[in-house]
Amino acid sequence: MLIQQASAIIAADLEKLSNVLERRAWEFKDTPMIGRTHGIHAEPITFGFKLANWYSETQRNIARFRIAAEDMRVGKFSGAVGIFAHLSPLRHLQRTEVREVEEFFSEKQKGSSAMPHKRNPITLEQISGLARVVRSNAQAAFENVALWHERDISHSSVERVIIPDSTTLVDYMLQKTTNVLDTMFVYPEQMKFNLESTRGLVFSGQLLLDLVEHGVSREDAYRAVQNHAMRAWKEGLNFRELVLKDKAITSRVPRQQIERAFDLKRQLRNIDKIFARVFDGKTKQKRKPLERARKK
Amino acid sequence: MLIQQASAIIAADLEKLSNVLERRAWEFKDTPMIGRTHGIHAEPITFGFKLANWYSETQRNIARFRIAAEDMRVGKFSGAVGIFAHLSPLRHLQRTEVREVEEFFSEKQKGSSAMPHKRNPITLEQISGLARVVRSNAQAAFENVALWHERDISHSSVERVIIPDSTTLVDYMLQKTTNVLDTMFVYPEQMKFNLESTRGLVFSGQLLLDLVEHGVSREDAYRAVQNHAMRAWKEGLNFRELVLKDKAITSRVPRQQIERAFDLKRQLRNIDKIFARVFDGKTKQKRKPLERARKK
Amino acid sequence: MLIQQASAIIAADLEKLSNVLERRAWEFKDTPMIGRTHGIHAEPITFGFKLANWYSETQRNIARFRIAAEDMRVGKFSGAVGIFAHLSPLRHLQRTEVREVEEFFSEKQKGSSAMPHKRNPITLEQISGLARVVRSNAQAAFENVALWHERDISHSSVERVIIPDSTTLVDYMLQKTTNVLDTMFVYPEQMKFNLESTRGLVFSGQLLLDLVEHGVSREDAYRAVQNHAMRAWKEGLNFRELVLKDKAITSRVPRQQIERAFDLKRQLRNIDKIFARVFDGKTKQKRKPLERARKK
Amino acid sequence: MLIQQASAIIAADLEKLSNVLERRAWEFKDTPMIGRTHGIHAEPITFGFKLANWYSETQRNIARFRIAAEDMRVGKFSGAVGIFAHLSPLRHLQRTEVREVEEFFSEKQKGSSAMPHKRNPITLEQISGLARVVRSNAQAAFENVALWHERDISHSSVERVIIPDSTTLVDYMLQKTTNVLDTMFVYPEQMKFNLESTRGLVFSGQLLLDLVEHGVSREDAYRAVQNHAMRAWKEGLNFRELVLKDKAITSRVPRQQIERAFDLKRQLRNIDKIFARVFDGKTKQKRKPLERARKK
Repeated sequence: MLIQQASAIIAADLEKLSNVLERRAWEFKDTPMIGRTHGIHAEPITFGFKLANWYSETQRNIARFRIAAEDMRVGKFSGAVGIFAHLSPLRHLQRTEVREVEEFFSEKQKGSSAMPHKRNPITLEQISGLARVVRSNAQAAFENVALWHERDISHSSVERVIIPDSTTLVDYMLQKTTNVLDTMFVYPEQMKFNLESTRGLVFSGQLLLDLVEHGVSREDAYRAVQNHAMRAWKEGLNFRELVLKDKAITSRVPRQQIERAFDLKRQLRNIDKIFARVFDGKTKQKRKPLERARKK
Repeated sequence: MLIQQASAIIAADLEKLSNVLERRAWEFKDTPMIGRTHGIHAEPITFGFKLANWYSETQRNIARFRIAAEDMRVGKFSGAVGIFAHLSPLRHLQRTEVREVEEFFSEKQKGSSAMPHKRNPITLEQISGLARVVRSNAQAAFENVALWHERDISHSSVERVIIPDSTTLVDYMLQKTTNVLDTMFVYPEQMKFNLESTRGLVFSGQLLLDLVEHGVSREDAYRAVQNHAMRAWKEGLNFRELVLKDKAITSRVPRQQIERAFDLKRQLRNIDKIFARVFDGKTKQKRKPLERARKK
Repeated sequence: MLIQQASAIIAADLEKLSNVLERRAWEFKDTPMIGRTHGIHAEPITFGFKLANWYSETQRNIARFRIAAEDMRVGKFSGAVGIFAHLSPLRHLQRTEVREVEEFFSEKQKGSSAMPHKRNPITLEQISGLARVVRSNAQAAFENVALWHERDISHSSVERVIIPDSTTLVDYMLQKTTNVLDTMFVYPEQMKFNLESTRGLVFSGQLLLDLVEHGVSREDAYRAVQNHAMRAWKEGLNFRELVLKDKAITSRVPRQQIERAFDLKRQLRNIDKIFARVFDGKTKQKRKPLERARKK
Repeated sequence: MLIQQASAIIAADLEKLSNVLERRAWEFKDTPMIGRTHGIHAEPITFGFKLANWYSETQRNIARFRIAAEDMRVGKFSGAVGIFAHLSPLRHLQRTEVREVEEFFSEKQKGSSAMPHKRNPITLEQISGLARVVRSNAQAAFENVALWHERDISHSSVERVIIPDSTTLVDYMLQKTTNVLDTMFVYPEQMKFNLESTRGLVFSGQLLLDLVEHGVSREDAYRAVQNHAMRAWKEGLNFRELVLKDKAITSRVPRQQIERAFDLKRQLRNIDKIFARVFDGKTKQKRKPLERARKK
């Protein structure tokens, strides 16, 4: 059956993607960057942590795909498509103001025809677009679930379009995504620059916890931290310094304690444990050659 | 621009469909058949009336398509697709129990490979299926509306798939639909047989109105008519005879009046007016040659 | 978590639906009816066989739902919805010309306000409609898969709408479907009438096989069978008699053999085996009480 | 009819949105910012130009909505919904690295519960999410186009959900969008900072045109400009200076001519003409009070 062959190809694509994610996650395990929620700087993470998350998600997708492929084998196609209609978030990281990661761009490559300076995330844009096509094919598959009595071939005309289109597209998208991740340029310096661009603001959550732990009521702590944060944001001041000058805070919490809240290493202290959990048994043997590789 | 050429082709397809519907509507203007709501026999109509309705809808679709095509000309594609994702209801009329209309089936055509007796509505099934594909492309077009800042080419990868696919499919579907309507077999005898198969039940609405007009309260009239109708349905009796034997009814409404409720001609008395309204100015000159044609 | 409670309710609904299907499948195990493909009479089945198919499908849906519910428990909602967007095909069986099965209609119930004779499949129409809403919610869930960086609450506004709406709707639809199946009126006489309405045509597939088995080439057999079938269809003749009068056939295949092709019992000879396979271990103990019940 | 009332409310919402866009477009007519394509800095525009574009699009949406509302008035609902499933791009402008525009955030407002420093674009995120719900309702409306014979109420159960939901959501979304645009914080300094952050790269397109105009072949010009641009990008150098040091260029094009390519005023010289065209007749009378207002 053609569907089984297609499933095998896609399953292999997913394994390759998973392998690339695993390799690159270890490569950037200790590269700090800012975590963003709602597009706004939240708290520090590492780029390897981000990739490890995608690895986990890919593992879950592989498990889901196996179930869907098994379902398809017994003739139940509907709904299986569309699971992979994910949207790679990497193109957000290439935006000019962010520029932490870029798609590979060959020295000889021509960019925008009218604007020679541009390096656009064209592969990831294409993948984002094609995900819409795959998602919409899933909709046609859902409509195909309904049936007149024992059988009806309104379905076959749909399947002849959406099955080859979707499997071909998903294969193409997975290969392109794998290639982008495999060859991407990563800019740790720029990650550090962005991380520090808010002058300490992103440690406000840790500071809040530390104040509460030292006996400040949550309400008072929140108000104080937010006031300093908003002032720092508005006037371009250094958040840490503002806090250290606030006697209402320093009178209750030792200066050293406050400074610990701004310690990046402390923020990232659990990365090793997280990696151990995500990559479980494989951890030790993999870690070493990579560490060796990095030392070279 | 390719889109303009495609629009012109589809507009021409729609005109051809409209012409075939107009011709066949006049051909079957006075051919009685049962109207169905919820799949259940409701009240008598004519097959020409049904086709005239589709003609009207096609005229509205032509108007909508012109607006959409104009929108596309100035570069606003999104959402225009999908409007024609209609589902031709004709395949319901070919079901074995109904069999009032059939897709053309050549003497030499091979039917189902395993069941030589079968004549399936394969073209209309295919159209029903492909409408799902066009509808799902519309969904991808909607997702394309969102944009990053001044421009983003995630859209173009989608458009390169859905615009040629949808325009080609709609062209194909319109041509096939036109051809089915142009060459369909119509069985007026079977229409009459189905119309009469409920032994007068389908005149219950007219009877209700006539009783009320003659002074029976709406509640009493409804209860009496429904009682007789349900008994006729259950026991396979003649509804008209049951009503005529009910003295509670005949004592208040003259027998002649009751019988008028079962008069098919009276039910269909407005067909000419409706056709005049639908086809307006064109009415007179078209009517004559068709009447002449039918007399031959 | 509310989602877990909702999942438990839906899982219970599915079990109830499954139980009703099992009971009614056994009840109508030996009630012959015509199987339809493309809306056209194909070959005889039994109504119990149809219900056993739905039971199997429901069992597969239960398995799929468990996986989806587990996925949701760990916070992966997207895509799980929509699986149940099935469309109960029963309302096709209530169409006036078919009328083999009807939704329960109380003696005191009011039907159509304008047409007192009508009994519409209103519950199943409603379910068909609501399935469109659930399917469309699945589309919104797919769009929710994409994410900005570490998190983004564009998703929560969607989930607040589609999760309660979809779970409530699915619960409602499953209860209504279960109730319709539990209380439906079944008309075995009408099933038999429809089965015989094509005067033997529906045995053409078996006849073809029998002719080939007796040495007629497949091509010749197909041509002969189709010729008689089309003539019977067109002129309202008895297919079996036409075949028995064809000397080209009777000279090569014994009359008795031809007549066996039209034997309904032979067609349905595997029903018991199929039921045993579908309901496996449960078969014996369940069968007896039901048989006893039917004898009363 | 409720639909007519809902249409009137939405039409009024659109007018209000249009008015706010017009007012704010004039307010920021001469505020330079970078235009972005694919999320990458492209060429300078002004913020008022961006708002004027949205005004134009809103005018086209008003025209489309009037046609759709008229269609709905005569009972043709399907497909009309969904047109407004646009996604406001403003939340991209609030991203920490960009921060050119922010949703209004009251001094007393509480932000993220765990991270006191955060000001999230929550209203626009919600609108982005709800647009997915409206889009998916459009899908259900498309499925509603198909009909069994003369009528079938599978449609009404859908319409009872999607019409009130969509009209209410669109009303809510338009009001929220209008409010966000009305009260947003705009940061011209940050716009200028971002515009200049690539050290002249965004003038590469103009430079290319100027070189070609002065007799350099397009291929040579492109290669030279791209080389300098990529080097500036990679090494953090000033693009303009690199170009001015390139004798292959300066020997053929006068220095003054090269410098003109980097003139922001020249880039934006057509803004007044564009505004005149977009806001046509209304231009003069509106301009004055606004200019007066700004001088205060």
